[in-house]
Amino acid sequence: MAAHDRLAVVLVATRNPLNIGAAARAMGNFGFAELRVVAPYDAGFREARSAVGASELLENAAEFSSVAEAVGDCSLVVGTTAVGTRELLHPLKRLEEGGALIREGLETGRAALLFGSEKRGLSNDDLSHCHWLLRIPTLDSHRSMNLGQAVAVCLYELARLAEAASCSGGPPMAEAEELERLTQALFAAQRASGYTKRGAEESSLEKTRRLVRRMTLNSEDAQTWTGILARINLRLKGTNR
Amino acid sequence: MAAHDRLAVVLVATRNPLNIGAAARAMGNFGFAELRVVAPYDAGFREARSAVGASELLENAAEFSSVAEAVGDCSLVVGTTAVGTRELLHPLKRLEEGGALIREGLETGRAALLFGSEKRGLSNDDLSHCHWLLRIPTLDSHRSMNLGQAVAVCLYELARLAEAASCSGGPPMAEAEELERLTQALFAAQRASGYTKRGAEESSLEKTRRLVRRMTLNSEDAQTWTGILARINLRLKGTNR
Repeated sequence: MAAHDRLAVVLVATRNPLNIGAAARAMGNFGFAELRVVAPYDAGFREARSAVGASELLENAAEFSSVAEAVGDCSLVVGTTAVGTRELLHPLKRLEEGGALIREGLETGRAALLFGSEKRGLSNDDLSHCHWLLRIPTLDSHRSMNLGQAVAVCLYELARLAEAASCSGGPPMAEAEELERLTQALFAAQRASGYTKRGAEESSLEKTRRLVRRMTLNSEDAQTWTGILARINLRLKGTNR
Repeated sequence: MAAHDRLAVVLVATRNPLNIGAAARAMGNFGFAELRVVAPYDAGFREARSAVGASELLENAAEFSSVAEAVGDCSLVVGTTAVGTRELLHPLKRLEEGGALIREGLETGRAALLFGSEKRGLSNDDLSHCHWLLRIPTLDSHRSMNLGQAVAVCLYELARLAEAASCSGGPPMAEAEELERLTQALFAAQRASGYTKRGAEESSLEKTRRLVRRMTLNSEDAQTWTGILARINLRLKGTNR
């Protein structure tokens, strides 16, 4: 099962059938297939389902009577909200950061992304099922998005992140241990060459560590750098004898 | 005038008033203000404008009878399309790449982003006014997006890129000249320390150049590195005498 297929878009208490259709359409656009609806406004849902050109995705949408049932098989449950941090008891993440976490969650299990009703959003009871909340970075003065548009933007971001991850390909990024080896080698070279002033060793080590972290090295390049510096250090040792 | 205010969202021959309203709403969400409509379906536009809760943005939307007039003051004109490359005479860019180019264009002038009618998209005549075309990366099997959703996704991406640019802040990226100085210093250190094998100098210089380019250094860090290596080289010189 591909990661994309492990995401369930969950529409809770949606009233306007056009919005259910719009959510389904955006899912098709970005390659997501699992639509779940919780306590939809009955006529609305029937209307959307039977609309001319209703997608297979919409016809296959599963209907649940509670959020608990709808997210039962998901190991990550994320609620969307337009509300600021003040009123919330849950951690709140912006779409870019939160999207990356959802992608991670999809690597190993199912994730649910919840959208509340057009008027009220998700209720406190709905939110109690969520691990954390997601907010699309809209202006404070115009926070609330149209439901179909909010779904589209979230799914675009998830698809974008998936593609960026698969495109990056190449060697993996350096791990903390590799970066620390490089840091120590560079620091040793600074000391042996007289670049670091006596007495400033501690702050200099910290500076060096930050410098290396800012390089965003992949694992291979980190090893190359460490190799070069090891050789330099070996030679510098000779000069200090 | 902020860059955001130099973008005009241009809706061409839109029929459904809900879509005009949805476009206006997404503009408000992401902080864009200039809506222009070209040859709208009259009743639709009047309906959208007079809708309860119609935004100031919608009320202020300027109406034009041709694309030429609507984009007359724009130095960059970009058309959106769901079509693949085959049929197109224009360069086609995906939203991420194209979005970055639009942001660049907004630094110095006005840009127009065109969206065609729900049914037919932009006509060949509309397209002839465009510098290039933009495509949201939807699945080949589900290319065509709902108009309001397409507007929302495009504006989200433009707002996201703007924020990423303003967040990066800090010192500017290193220029080619600075990177080349660093490359030469690192290469000299490799030779002086015996890291580079005799006879392999040329390929090694190229490797070093690529290694340095992959570091994505800012200007300040490039200078720090070059300083460290200069000091190391000075000391290594002593050992080779």
